[in-house]
Amino acid sequence: MRPVAIAAAGKTPFGAFPDRDLRSLAVEACLKCLKNGHVSPSQVEAFYLGNFAGPSFVGQNHLAPYVSTAVGIRDVPATRFEAACASSGSAFFHAFLAVASGVYDCVLVAGVEKMTSQPTARVTEILAGAGDCSGEIKAGSTFPSLFAMIARRHMHQFGTTREHLAAVAVKNHANGALNPDAQMRKVITIEQALAARPVAEPLHLYDCSLISDGAAAVLLMPADRARDFTEKPVRILGVAQASDFVALDHKQDITTFPAVRRAAQKAYEMAGVGPRDIQFAELHDCFTIAEIVALEDLGFVERGAGGPFEASGATARTGEKPINASGGLKSKGHPVGATGVAQLCDLVAQIRCEAGDMQLKRNSIGLAQNLGGSGATCVVSILGNV
Amino acid sequence: MRPVAIAAAGKTPFGAFPDRDLRSLAVEACLKCLKNGHVSPSQVEAFYLGNFAGPSFVGQNHLAPYVSTAVGIRDVPATRFEAACASSGSAFFHAFLAVASGVYDCVLVAGVEKMTSQPTARVTEILAGAGDCSGEIKAGSTFPSLFAMIARRHMHQFGTTREHLAAVAVKNHANGALNPDAQMRKVITIEQALAARPVAEPLHLYDCSLISDGAAAVLLMPADRARDFTEKPVRILGVAQASDFVALDHKQDITTFPAVRRAAQKAYEMAGVGPRDIQFAELHDCFTIAEIVALEDLGFVERGAGGPFEASGATARTGEKPINASGGLKSKGHPVGATGVAQLCDLVAQIRCEAGDMQLKRNSIGLAQNLGGSGATCVVSILGNV
Repeated sequence: MRPVAIAAAGKTPFGAFPDRDLRSLAVEACLKCLKNGHVSPSQVEAFYLGNFAGPSFVGQNHLAPYVSTAVGIRDVPATRFEAACASSGSAFFHAFLAVASGVYDCVLVAGVEKMTSQPTARVTEILAGAGDCSGEIKAGSTFPSLFAMIARRHMHQFGTTREHLAAVAVKNHANGALNPDAQMRKVITIEQALAARPVAEPLHLYDCSLISDGAAAVLLMPADRARDFTEKPVRILGVAQASDFVALDHKQDITTFPAVRRAAQKAYEMAGVGPRDIQFAELHDCFTIAEIVALEDLGFVERGAGGPFEASGATARTGEKPINASGGLKSKGHPVGATGVAQLCDLVAQIRCEAGDMQLKRNSIGLAQNLGGSGATCVVSILGNV
Repeated sequence: MRPVAIAAAGKTPFGAFPDRDLRSLAVEACLKCLKNGHVSPSQVEAFYLGNFAGPSFVGQNHLAPYVSTAVGIRDVPATRFEAACASSGSAFFHAFLAVASGVYDCVLVAGVEKMTSQPTARVTEILAGAGDCSGEIKAGSTFPSLFAMIARRHMHQFGTTREHLAAVAVKNHANGALNPDAQMRKVITIEQALAARPVAEPLHLYDCSLISDGAAAVLLMPADRARDFTEKPVRILGVAQASDFVALDHKQDITTFPAVRRAAQKAYEMAGVGPRDIQFAELHDCFTIAEIVALEDLGFVERGAGGPFEASGATARTGEKPINASGGLKSKGHPVGATGVAQLCDLVAQIRCEAGDMQLKRNSIGLAQNLGGSGATCVVSILGNV
């Protein structure tokens, strides 16, 4: 396995864009990325696309060549990866393997989702396809209710409180307010978070991420080649994908995700680092409780300590371990198929010192955690400028 | 790149199975495959699943861990690949890359589709998602009509006749009648084929493949390791994936598919063989015209010569180049996400001399061609016992 770098990155703003279709969003992110890397479409040797539910959201399947040909990429393998909300994380993982093992020298990885053209009830139904439709979903569960059960159990087992959950929301909204590409640039108070209407108790409105349109892309090259295209290549120090049961009721303990622990362990091993070495991270805060569980599963804190850690301010921009400086899924937005690669774009911007108002001071090694469903898929990536 | 072999294969019968759900079909194929290779689920290092439209057909997304955990595979990367009707061909291609480049030593590749739970009109609509929904599909095209246009143009340009198309159907039905796992074991005459009701002129009922449920799986290992698990490993001599425009109206010439030519060229190069060396093949006869065009794009015959070649009997079991000895998509059935891997299972059975009544005499090197949409994706694989 040879060293691999992200040579370029590009993404669209996240939001509700009634005038934009799926393809135009994906093409915009891809062209921005290629321009960022001074690479022409004809130099791309393979196209990896993450998308969760294009067929259900916009009626379009066979999405990889549908997008790649519009970017100007022809002939080469163009493939769609689907792993629920970890779809583009998974595309990135497989693209990394192909470049690291010498198959390709220039691979474009993108993620896209166009969700806002469906009414919210239908969005909830489509998202439920990431759960077990022959079991939990058939029984009436939706993702807010699944994560509500996780939150309830975490509260019972570890004393986590609604204030802990709200602290995640307040912090991510504060961060998102600094992000010009965020869907919701709105500072909220802890009182507002606590008083918001319930979605699935104990999760209230501000505990839930957004329904979004958007796309993101990164360009992968062998590390030595990347230097010919950019002065600021970002090294992929480690990346791993792991899996687990789709149905929450098949898991032994719903307050921890074995797939996250497994992927993290492998990514840390590959990178030769541990949780303490990670200076900042983009975590998959599809719900506030998910960020708390991720802190624990990634080894940033002990089990059960995620809530108090959030409330202490340690995960704020100015804290010891800044989490979701971009605003996270909560505030930046969560076009599900785009999220995994968008997290990487955010890490790249930080590591390159191009994050503008979001820029962190300790920015040389960052981690992204991209979760699919209620923990059935996880991709953990560690990037650095070393 | 190290040599890679298929160490095991397994599949379900193809048909309409109202009592079977998607997962049980996929699990059956996977367990048959693992049993065939004397491999336990815990030995599998990654799971690659091809599926076209599980979310639309049965409401289930996030399919790879949904299937893999039911097979008993945990922790490892489990990923779904979607490339229209070439979904599992694409999964196979990527799994090959990972094993050939040394990432994994034991990978399970499966394909599955459960189509018959939807009414035919809805199936047609879902399949249309493999076309360009912002153009040709919006304008009213369905896949029968797209391939009807291809057939019309082929007739105009090369003098291909309805009798040529019917010859494909008659031959594939005769072959399918020998296949115990085929959906339609029914010999038909050329008169029956010509007299059948029109679907989209010039394509009539017997020119169209079937709506099917089914699954298939193969197990990949480095060639030297495969010998520890089977006395009959089958070498993957070459495999390539290529892409092109999704919309038929974006193509310069609709009587040839550049993605097929490109994938074939690369697969031949990798295998160090040419079209004349291929002794038999499983081609993607989603419509009879598709088999004729494939013969030409793969270099088995000159452009325009596919129709007469079929009518001459050259592609029959007893001909110089047996095509679709399994019965093909036409008669064996076409659960779209399963088709690519099922073709490989059919090649493996022939090469291992385990094809029963379907067994061909010249069986040492075979080719599978798996097409997505109207040619936007193609995967060509060449297997052999050399």
